[in-house]
Amino acid sequence: MQFGMIGSGSWATALAKILTDNGNIINWFIRNEKNIAYLQKRRHNPHYLGSAYFDTKQLHLSCNLEEVVAKSDALVIAIPSAFVADVLASLPKDAFNSKKIISAIKGLMPQNNQLLNEYLYDNFTVPLCNYFTVLGPCHAEEVASEKLSYLTFSGKDEPTANLIANNFKTEYLNTIVNHDIIGVQYAAVLKNIYALGAGIAHGLEYGDNFLSVYIANAAAEMAAFCHKLVWDKESEEEQRSINYSASVYLGDLLVTCYSLYSRNRTFGNMIGKGYSVKSAQLELNMVAEGYNASKCIYQANGLLQVDMPIATAIYQILWEQQPADEGFKSIEKILF
Amino acid sequence: MQFGMIGSGSWATALAKILTDNGNIINWFIRNEKNIAYLQKRRHNPHYLGSAYFDTKQLHLSCNLEEVVAKSDALVIAIPSAFVADVLASLPKDAFNSKKIISAIKGLMPQNNQLLNEYLYDNFTVPLCNYFTVLGPCHAEEVASEKLSYLTFSGKDEPTANLIANNFKTEYLNTIVNHDIIGVQYAAVLKNIYALGAGIAHGLEYGDNFLSVYIANAAAEMAAFCHKLVWDKESEEEQRSINYSASVYLGDLLVTCYSLYSRNRTFGNMIGKGYSVKSAQLELNMVAEGYNASKCIYQANGLLQVDMPIATAIYQILWEQQPADEGFKSIEKILF
Repeated sequence: MQFGMIGSGSWATALAKILTDNGNIINWFIRNEKNIAYLQKRRHNPHYLGSAYFDTKQLHLSCNLEEVVAKSDALVIAIPSAFVADVLASLPKDAFNSKKIISAIKGLMPQNNQLLNEYLYDNFTVPLCNYFTVLGPCHAEEVASEKLSYLTFSGKDEPTANLIANNFKTEYLNTIVNHDIIGVQYAAVLKNIYALGAGIAHGLEYGDNFLSVYIANAAAEMAAFCHKLVWDKESEEEQRSINYSASVYLGDLLVTCYSLYSRNRTFGNMIGKGYSVKSAQLELNMVAEGYNASKCIYQANGLLQVDMPIATAIYQILWEQQPADEGFKSIEKILF
Repeated sequence: MQFGMIGSGSWATALAKILTDNGNIINWFIRNEKNIAYLQKRRHNPHYLGSAYFDTKQLHLSCNLEEVVAKSDALVIAIPSAFVADVLASLPKDAFNSKKIISAIKGLMPQNNQLLNEYLYDNFTVPLCNYFTVLGPCHAEEVASEKLSYLTFSGKDEPTANLIANNFKTEYLNTIVNHDIIGVQYAAVLKNIYALGAGIAHGLEYGDNFLSVYIANAAAEMAAFCHKLVWDKESEEEQRSINYSASVYLGDLLVTCYSLYSRNRTFGNMIGKGYSVKSAQLELNMVAEGYNASKCIYQANGLLQVDMPIATAIYQILWEQQPADEGFKSIEKILF
């Protein structure tokens, strides 16, 4: 299986390190030729995860996306969801025919709240059986320093998911396979909302006792939402086989909510301290994933109608000008 | 409802603060007369949680346990499980007749692995319907500083559990009621084992990615164990009504595992660094709750036969001289 990597940020670099440490030679699309030259010469990414060194014999670097796609059997897409459409726009509609797509994207496409599989189906007719995700609680920095981490590969085609996973196994990387391809993607979106909310709680000066109750309830909400996604689509047996305490659900929620340095946490903390959304964004010069995610999930839940008071409160704080302290007061009484 | 408090440590003091802040006048058994005189004069406990001040008009302090029990309708027992038998030994066998017992004990009785309700039934014929627990993720220090916290009151007699809970409600304390009286007690025991294990993982220099996977899997083990406790004893409806993401299960696990200052964490960290159990105990001059708990649960699981590789590995490290790194290697491959 010949892997191609699309993306050159911190997470793409971590995944490229894992694949090459497993022994793979990869085709790697990097848009900027200077960055290619730098990586070729200095053996590490100039801008991200600089401590991850590569054996350049294992890298076929190219700024020609079509060529990278054509030469690869499986494409890892590891670019921020907001840029996916732009990056892929140059490709012909049949570029992904019979290719396996492995999404490393942790978010919905902001243009229309789509999951990447929906976008790829609409624009490149990629069938769901050729679509996989790589998700789980995995800070790129710990991959760079080779701390043992776990990644979950999800897909409807479980034998292929297993095959793909085997190409990511290394001494420091254990892999898990899962068939809940839609649920894991929504879990990855939800965790950003709850992490942003953990930041708000911190800004509002709640303590560790409250935080643990908040996160436990967030886990319950996440499980209820993901369960609703499959309850009329999968057999009861399939539904029961999903354990929402698995690392791709609960583990990712924990590592994100308890991380002190995430953008969601920092952004939420400012909201909790009384900044407006606009001034927090100006101050930080970035948009936290959980901000858009809260609106996407609020809208998606219009159909699903899952009881999710925490995600709703965070949406109202971020998008409907509800003061943060009032929003949290409203959920205080219903946490269990 | 006239409350009596048995115990004068940090957790007993926090619960006495909550009850009196709710407006209750309490009978408080403190063994040492000097400590009574100090509390009377200086309005705070001389040794524990010194920042919690009392209105002494709300305290009937006494070193006469039998009198405290006789004058109270509901007795909060908040002493370390290892000392319960000694403290209660002086009481006549009928002392608790028609009294409500509220256990604030987070552990099994070390003499024979009994839950407190089993011990009280054997020694004082206290029926299960008169027995309640107060548990949940609640550092005493945050109660002292009046940070919003949550406590769960469990009992078979739900109306009385509600009545008791209402006496603990304050501006900074929300209460939850639950009927899983056996499960919550085992969850409180299990979380100490997993927190000790989190300390071992830290000592072995695993990172945050691993820790989140470990804790998520610990949550799954806890849920499986607690579910097994009720699966042939309660109706299917009752079983389904238990949400193991609730704060009394998952929340308490999180606050304990992520706390950097707990005895379990400190002890585990030393084991992970290569100290023997004996030298860690000598060095710290204390026994971490998770140490005895790991043996109790290992033995209890001889009957239940729940698949719990994490708790088993920690037992083997602590009690069967398995090197910590080997023990954790054995679970690395099965985490999901």
